[in-house]
Amino acid sequence: MMRTRPLKVALLGCGVVGTEVARIITTHADDLAARIGAPIELAGVAVRRPNRVRAGVPAELLTTDATALVKRGDIDVVIEVIGGIEPARSLITSAFEHGASVVSANKALLAAEGTVLHAAAVEHHVDLYYEAAVAGAIPLIRPLRESLAGDKVNRVLGIVNGTTNFILDKMDSTGAGYSEALDEATALGYAEADPTADVEGFDAAAKAAILAGIAFHTRVRFDDVHREGITEVTATDIASAKQMGCTVKLLAICERSADGKSVTARVHPAMIPLSHPLASVREAYNAVFVESSAAGSLMFYGPGAGGAPTASAVLGDLVAACRNKLAETTGPGESAYAQLPVSPMGDVVTRYHISLDVEDKPGVLAQVATVFAEHQVSIDTVRQKGKDGDAALVVVTHRAPDAALAATVEALRKLDTVRGVASIMRVEGE
Amino acid sequence: MMRTRPLKVALLGCGVVGTEVARIITTHADDLAARIGAPIELAGVAVRRPNRVRAGVPAELLTTDATALVKRGDIDVVIEVIGGIEPARSLITSAFEHGASVVSANKALLAAEGTVLHAAAVEHHVDLYYEAAVAGAIPLIRPLRESLAGDKVNRVLGIVNGTTNFILDKMDSTGAGYSEALDEATALGYAEADPTADVEGFDAAAKAAILAGIAFHTRVRFDDVHREGITEVTATDIASAKQMGCTVKLLAICERSADGKSVTARVHPAMIPLSHPLASVREAYNAVFVESSAAGSLMFYGPGAGGAPTASAVLGDLVAACRNKLAETTGPGESAYAQLPVSPMGDVVTRYHISLDVEDKPGVLAQVATVFAEHQVSIDTVRQKGKDGDAALVVVTHRAPDAALAATVEALRKLDTVRGVASIMRVEGE
Repeated sequence: MMRTRPLKVALLGCGVVGTEVARIITTHADDLAARIGAPIELAGVAVRRPNRVRAGVPAELLTTDATALVKRGDIDVVIEVIGGIEPARSLITSAFEHGASVVSANKALLAAEGTVLHAAAVEHHVDLYYEAAVAGAIPLIRPLRESLAGDKVNRVLGIVNGTTNFILDKMDSTGAGYSEALDEATALGYAEADPTADVEGFDAAAKAAILAGIAFHTRVRFDDVHREGITEVTATDIASAKQMGCTVKLLAICERSADGKSVTARVHPAMIPLSHPLASVREAYNAVFVESSAAGSLMFYGPGAGGAPTASAVLGDLVAACRNKLAETTGPGESAYAQLPVSPMGDVVTRYHISLDVEDKPGVLAQVATVFAEHQVSIDTVRQKGKDGDAALVVVTHRAPDAALAATVEALRKLDTVRGVASIMRVEGE
Repeated sequence: MMRTRPLKVALLGCGVVGTEVARIITTHADDLAARIGAPIELAGVAVRRPNRVRAGVPAELLTTDATALVKRGDIDVVIEVIGGIEPARSLITSAFEHGASVVSANKALLAAEGTVLHAAAVEHHVDLYYEAAVAGAIPLIRPLRESLAGDKVNRVLGIVNGTTNFILDKMDSTGAGYSEALDEATALGYAEADPTADVEGFDAAAKAAILAGIAFHTRVRFDDVHREGITEVTATDIASAKQMGCTVKLLAICERSADGKSVTARVHPAMIPLSHPLASVREAYNAVFVESSAAGSLMFYGPGAGGAPTASAVLGDLVAACRNKLAETTGPGESAYAQLPVSPMGDVVTRYHISLDVEDKPGVLAQVATVFAEHQVSIDTVRQKGKDGDAALVVVTHRAPDAALAATVEALRKLDTVRGVASIMRVEGE
């Protein structure tokens, strides 16, 4: 039996994603009702500029008073697609207090305040879902939280920012420099006017914090994530990667330590072998590898952003939240029982590709090799290229702690024969 | 607060998957308890041969009386990893009647009797989960049923049988014929002694029925799925595929018709372009593409079989079923409200690669082309290779209904100048 009183949905924000969410709720009403077990009704849409025309969104639903909308008391589910910390946080909290479940696409807020928000949802017996916050349409949070609930996830390795992947892909395919590729991304709408959140890795770091928390049943905050963007990646780095049979990707990497007693989360550009499936993720697509004890390696791939894909994830959560409302239950909330410490970047163990500008004279390689040995960073390969008294030395190491590599580089810079450290890049996915 | 009375789990079957399930339940008891919210206890394991040693499975839990085990009355969740129709069906039904939720990995049973079993689960207010029935560890059923619950799935295209993918991959990489590649698969444990279920496409067809049903919210039974295996695929077919920049894969394809009013489900070998991500799925891996209106194209990739991967999927379902038991609720069940008719294979529209042995004389091509035209099958390319009075003609068509192509082939066989139709293969993924 389908109940006839509709579930009421409030939409906060009506930009690219919000418009698409409103459109699907309206045009797919029958399907959604059948899947939920009750009709749903868009009860209000909070916007900043009510006079802007939004195709398919009835003007009478628009309001500028988001606070009043979430406090109406008859709202079953609030969809938050405003983004940013405030007023999103206050509105979500208020929605919980008034008995509404919340579906959010807000990675920054979840990464910063996820624990507080989850606790508030539990306190008020409502749901907090946010599949859209990570990797757009790609189902990732639900698989990690539910499908892999009986498994032990050891590693999450992924491309979770489409803007930076577009830029790095362009640099790789055309040989362009960073600025040139960024300009193209901006012109094509893949990068925002102020690209900082994307290119400096803030967006990916927020997603890494969310993924690590769910994967390891541990609280991981945005500030726990080591973050490096792609602004320093040069055409030379990409060319060096190619020489190694690699490409450069901005990766979000969440790992359990070898002894299983701690975790790390980090975002940085890295070389990965062309044979790795992530290497072939082109343009603005996202893909995430999950390695777990029983399942082995799983990959999830798809569009990581955009109005319709993000709306797909929001709607999936909306259906779940509505079903739970009808069944008077809630879905699985935060699981942070493991309480594993989050180790600093220095504890991460990986491989490195280091380019040095050195004097072209006998003994330099011996000096450099000695510095690596003193810091117990074992060298895998060295490539030397001489040119007019100068030379470039490219060193690829075996696996070593990041702190040891940092100390090695520090010491290398002090060598008279080393004119400069041209680049340091981690090598992943092997 | 964690409740202290444990949830009781009965395991039916203790082969490769069952042993791994029992091992994880025992060795990861603390993690599972924390994730579920209550401890779980393995209450009994039904086996056929109780004297066989099973590492990590306490001998005192073994019983040969599966019926008595599911009827004990104190079992919260029954895990069925026996496979086959009977006694699995009776045991599952009995489990429902005694108040137990069921987690099953049984694709054959679900494809044949899914509707009846779902109805029985609803009647007894318990859950029926079966993520492990399709594509092993790859989360697919939950993403389709829950993550994409607010989206409209138009197509599911995947490699869902590891044995056949291993064989076709070997044929592609080594040039071997079918028998030779099958022998290697058998020797390495990728194919069973009787490989019929895999190589004739029965296994993949069962999975296609399950996927189509969930994707389209429509009942699709095993008998609704058009099925062709890989036993007729020759080294020449693989070589022809290569010439076209393609490879051959056994695909499960579930599609909504262009007008959206019907669906089709089929399993057959097909050529796909090397540029398609499914083309690079090697060995016994599985991968499934899902195309939906809002999300666009998503891909899910991972190990499609094996004890530990399948156990991972079973355990994820076990955690969900246990959580629901604690919350006194049930998860989303069968959704078949759309009731779309399942069209026969003749209605499928796709492209074809046809190899003909013809007499090498003038006018043959014109004759052949006329037959295609008469059946309104439009030709994309023709390649002609003459050899000692004989010639091979390779025709690749534009998209046409399968029935039209079948009629074309029928008519071609009747031409005096056509000595034989060497092979017909569909071309997908473009």
